[in-house]
Amino acid sequence: MHPTKEQIAHRFTDLQNQICQGLAILNNNTPFAQELWERQGGGGGRTRITQNGTVIEKGGVNFSAVYGVIPPKIAQALQLPPDEEFYATGVSIVLHPYSPLMPIIHMNVRYFEISNGQYWFGGGIDLTPHYVVPADARYFHQQLQAVCQKYHPHYYPQFKKWADEYFYLKHRQETRGIGGIFFDRLTESEQLTKAQIFDFVQDVGELFVPIYTYFVNKYAHLPFTPQQQEWQFLRRSRYVEFNLIYDKGTKFGLDTDGRTESILMSMPPLAKWAYNYHPPAGTPEAQTLAWLKQGINWVEQQI
Amino acid sequence: MHPTKEQIAHRFTDLQNQICQGLAILNNNTPFAQELWERQGGGGGRTRITQNGTVIEKGGVNFSAVYGVIPPKIAQALQLPPDEEFYATGVSIVLHPYSPLMPIIHMNVRYFEISNGQYWFGGGIDLTPHYVVPADARYFHQQLQAVCQKYHPHYYPQFKKWADEYFYLKHRQETRGIGGIFFDRLTESEQLTKAQIFDFVQDVGELFVPIYTYFVNKYAHLPFTPQQQEWQFLRRSRYVEFNLIYDKGTKFGLDTDGRTESILMSMPPLAKWAYNYHPPAGTPEAQTLAWLKQGINWVEQQI
Repeated sequence: MHPTKEQIAHRFTDLQNQICQGLAILNNNTPFAQELWERQGGGGGRTRITQNGTVIEKGGVNFSAVYGVIPPKIAQALQLPPDEEFYATGVSIVLHPYSPLMPIIHMNVRYFEISNGQYWFGGGIDLTPHYVVPADARYFHQQLQAVCQKYHPHYYPQFKKWADEYFYLKHRQETRGIGGIFFDRLTESEQLTKAQIFDFVQDVGELFVPIYTYFVNKYAHLPFTPQQQEWQFLRRSRYVEFNLIYDKGTKFGLDTDGRTESILMSMPPLAKWAYNYHPPAGTPEAQTLAWLKQGINWVEQQI
Repeated sequence: MHPTKEQIAHRFTDLQNQICQGLAILNNNTPFAQELWERQGGGGGRTRITQNGTVIEKGGVNFSAVYGVIPPKIAQALQLPPDEEFYATGVSIVLHPYSPLMPIIHMNVRYFEISNGQYWFGGGIDLTPHYVVPADARYFHQQLQAVCQKYHPHYYPQFKKWADEYFYLKHRQETRGIGGIFFDRLTESEQLTKAQIFDFVQDVGELFVPIYTYFVNKYAHLPFTPQQQEWQFLRRSRYVEFNLIYDKGTKFGLDTDGRTESILMSMPPLAKWAYNYHPPAGTPEAQTLAWLKQGINWVEQQI
């Protein structure tokens, strides 16, 4: 079986449906609002947004499948041959929870194909807790590791490192959160067929609802203080900084005149900047900052 | 008189003092907190921040004078010869008011010199009202026009256009506010000596307190509604987007490992993103959006 772009896109729409259904149940049956949009050069998308739910304060689960002539800017950025056509499809999720005890979560799976026959998969999941809890970070990374190891022994260590490097705010010298996995340009090799890589990508997508369910059950309905919420707003401002300064998907989307509201669905509902704020030593907030480092082995972390 | 870099930097520290004193009086005598910082490669700065005042919710009035070998990244970006030394000094201001009826204001004056003898001045003032009031926009642009016309008949039209082009959010297809003036690479010519350009830059700096006083007297103490404040938070998110995506000073500072907290003092205290929000037609909010266009002749606007 050699999955076609149509089969992959179709599977991604199913994944979007499945994730939205799972999340609606967790989120007090708050439905997603759907908007269909078309891209001028070819293709379009299905944006699904939820706002002001009991669990998710603002979130998007977006599907798109776009195609056409490769814009010169993209051809250059991706080092692709000129005058080819492209096809790109994916699902992209960012959820900002209402409770500061819940993490922000991000997932993306994507497929890119060029008319010259080149293709690749990319994607990842990463977690940005407002309060880092090592046992949860271990749980999260264990789930990712288990899926990766079904496919290749190098996948988890490589993709975990890639996430550490990618989700990094250089100007703050801190990671966006506790990382996760990040991968790109996965294509068939001696080890894995196209169908197997597609299976891996689907498995990554299927992880999303169980992982989010774990955090909702554990944290979403606990009481929290105004001070914790204040800290959440401050941490959200770092999320904004990452996405607007570093995130390649955001930059790519805005540079290529993508649909702004779909791209910037990743922005938090409310974010706060305080000048040079440092939480007092020994507080849970200061402990969280101490965990925002690259290279932490969460799976084998002593807790 | 050919002002030296030391004289210019000294004048800029005076300007910082003068502006901070003026603002403290307007802001219920809330003092600025000062932090001195040093740059590893040479020079440093004097950051002054005010937070939680009755008029200014968050603002910075920053002076810096930095020098040393030109970092390769800067040499490339500014198309400068390699292996030269540079000297850069300036004052940079962003004020986020407490009241949504007050505008956000930004001012910058700067001087750049290279060891090969090249030098130039740059700067500007621009205004980002949460609610655009054409009479105020006219007043603001008249002040800028009057100062520009003391020096060169082309200054105001050129620098106003430059601001329209610079302070533009392409992905939103809207200007950051009602613009103002923006200029760069001003150096002596047949028309103006270095001393005259320096006078112009000082005159621009001296405009700041009177202009801000006008808005404080007119708006800072009027009551406002929670709905207006909500709109303010939404507009602030656009300010964040501009500064993190487009602003060259911010990018330059972060790229060259500047002092993050001084660079990002421009971030608002609280900002909000709502998915695809459009104010209802006919409201003051919708009218404001309609004014966020390039090329409006504010001075001759019929009101």
